[in-house]
Amino acid sequence: MRIKEIRETSVKLKTNLRNAAFAFDEMTTSVVAVITDVVRNGKPVTGYAFNSTGRYACGAQMRDRFVPRLMKAKEEDVTLDPKAFDPDKILKAMMVAEKPGGDCERSVGIGTIEVAIWDAVAKIADVPAYKLIADKYRGGRFEPKMFCYVGGGWYAPGKGIPELLDEVRMYRDLGYTLIKIKVGGAPIMEDVARLQAVIKLLGDSKNVAVDANCGIPPGMRKAYAEALKPLNLAWFEEVAHPNDYAGNAEFIEWYGNPVATGENLFSLEDVRNLVRHGGMRPGVDIVQTDMPQSYGLGTAAKIVRMLEENGWSAKSLLPHGGNQMSLNQAAGFGLGMCEAYLNVFGDFAGYCDDLKVDDGWMTLGDWPGMGFERQARLIALMRGVGP
Amino acid sequence: MRIKEIRETSVKLKTNLRNAAFAFDEMTTSVVAVITDVVRNGKPVTGYAFNSTGRYACGAQMRDRFVPRLMKAKEEDVTLDPKAFDPDKILKAMMVAEKPGGDCERSVGIGTIEVAIWDAVAKIADVPAYKLIADKYRGGRFEPKMFCYVGGGWYAPGKGIPELLDEVRMYRDLGYTLIKIKVGGAPIMEDVARLQAVIKLLGDSKNVAVDANCGIPPGMRKAYAEALKPLNLAWFEEVAHPNDYAGNAEFIEWYGNPVATGENLFSLEDVRNLVRHGGMRPGVDIVQTDMPQSYGLGTAAKIVRMLEENGWSAKSLLPHGGNQMSLNQAAGFGLGMCEAYLNVFGDFAGYCDDLKVDDGWMTLGDWPGMGFERQARLIALMRGVGP
Repeated sequence: MRIKEIRETSVKLKTNLRNAAFAFDEMTTSVVAVITDVVRNGKPVTGYAFNSTGRYACGAQMRDRFVPRLMKAKEEDVTLDPKAFDPDKILKAMMVAEKPGGDCERSVGIGTIEVAIWDAVAKIADVPAYKLIADKYRGGRFEPKMFCYVGGGWYAPGKGIPELLDEVRMYRDLGYTLIKIKVGGAPIMEDVARLQAVIKLLGDSKNVAVDANCGIPPGMRKAYAEALKPLNLAWFEEVAHPNDYAGNAEFIEWYGNPVATGENLFSLEDVRNLVRHGGMRPGVDIVQTDMPQSYGLGTAAKIVRMLEENGWSAKSLLPHGGNQMSLNQAAGFGLGMCEAYLNVFGDFAGYCDDLKVDDGWMTLGDWPGMGFERQARLIALMRGVGP
Repeated sequence: MRIKEIRETSVKLKTNLRNAAFAFDEMTTSVVAVITDVVRNGKPVTGYAFNSTGRYACGAQMRDRFVPRLMKAKEEDVTLDPKAFDPDKILKAMMVAEKPGGDCERSVGIGTIEVAIWDAVAKIADVPAYKLIADKYRGGRFEPKMFCYVGGGWYAPGKGIPELLDEVRMYRDLGYTLIKIKVGGAPIMEDVARLQAVIKLLGDSKNVAVDANCGIPPGMRKAYAEALKPLNLAWFEEVAHPNDYAGNAEFIEWYGNPVATGENLFSLEDVRNLVRHGGMRPGVDIVQTDMPQSYGLGTAAKIVRMLEENGWSAKSLLPHGGNQMSLNQAAGFGLGMCEAYLNVFGDFAGYCDDLKVDDGWMTLGDWPGMGFERQARLIALMRGVGP
């Protein structure tokens, strides 16, 4: 059971949303197909993945380095046999001839290929990816239901509070109860007014989180802490530059309430720095790495273990992504929540077409692999890549 | 005075050296040509650069994102007029639609283009790049002579102490006095024996530095600190993973003598973390970022300023690179030393063909731009890219 061929292509996300830090107009993602030598119903079992959202396609790195290294690795190191499959050896095969540090240049390409391999192995084993993850790392215990919050409340030209409330009502009508709103892209009192309106609509400030996307200038952070602290929100996300651990710690001192960060960290070392230097409090604050962008599920397992060794619970991890990959990850490792993006990022956000949300909770299906085959538009796009 | 076209190509370094962390066999670099609308002697003034050594070519990022953004930027933001040229605006133009963090994925491509622009602007001004740097950032004061040490002592199959000493003798015969030797790729007592032999040959332990290239396992670091401390070396380089700031600080506690790190940091935020959390001592320890790999000369200026604001001297910066780019950077900012790689990295290491080293010191020439035109083999390769 081995990889026969790996294909990839770059696809535009097709979105024109704006957060506090930048616009998404140009954004692309790499779609990967790992074609195996295992044949089912006359077709090769194929694993798929894409590099989540927010980091550009990275096909050149895959074609030049990671794919050739996998293809020439020893078969026992890169086997797809579910019993012998070893993500650490697969990572090692792709990391040959790489200097330490500078992770993001390769962690996105490597992680996306690694997730597509997991999709293939779970399909070969004919189990959902979350079950394969749980069997490998968590003694078989997975979460059959996941709580999902909505990442929304984006800024858009001409979008005022009434339009923001229309957006939030739409999420509520779909069954979501916890909504995350962008802040930092408007004057501070306008942001507070936006939040007060959403809190009023949702009835409880713990149903509202905020995301600054690192866009608040350092000199404004204390003012934001003081203005938003009385609102008693679910969490305050990415106040500082992702690598400004001391800035994050300083904000926690001012703000006191839960903060979240980590979607722009790409390695175990980065997350360890957040724990060591970021002032983050186990049981209070939230870590949000994006798994296919940060070396894949094998590294996600190491991040969970490192956090647990430092007194954290897996429940404090809320993976960035909002797709079947982060959903399987969350269910398999028993993480805290999943994110949902609705009507954004084209076909690259959202879950299986038939998954419904009830009072914030989503009951998982028994799909083989990641479950992309139950996302009609996404799988059509993926099948265009291969085979 | 504007950019007419930017071309790039990927070139193999052609080396088979090995350090403690990995082999360089596959390594490539991007060669960039910035062709301007300024004509001299019937030819367009063209700026060149390459992305130093140790990080792979990144032409895809340049072609897909950085070059198109520069070409559609407002002319006043990306002017090549030496009086109006603004590296911060040029960086900003290339950073449109980029999420914060994950720097290495773009800092190498952006930095290499930025350095090629500096080469073009200095040629338009008909001054050496180090003078343009000094005029812009250091009140016109540059260093007319730079001390250069040799980065050598690589491991190679069949290479024992006699062959290592032959290598060091060759450097000494060329005029170098301070030689850096790889450690961590052999058993510790073998490394100590290698160092003792080199110290004996060079007559003074302060003429010997060591470089572990992040290859020493954490559990072995204390043993290395204790074994090498009595040798009283010039410095101990990259003991820990580049982002393991606490690991670096812990080693400093054990070792006491000067340490160096930074060639695998790619942003102002990374270097700030090293200063905040790495235990680094101003006046004792050494920072070694690679400028074309970390967003270029505009960011290098910010790193110098940040270090000085934290009590450091520019003399504690020893840029990674060993090429005309790092030489101009060092002379322009008044940094401590330059590195020289001899007979490695093909045509991508070394200085102008006519530069000689005398008792460790190199007297600079008055080349226009970076001075690549006085490296016969390198400039031939660069002219193959354009125009």
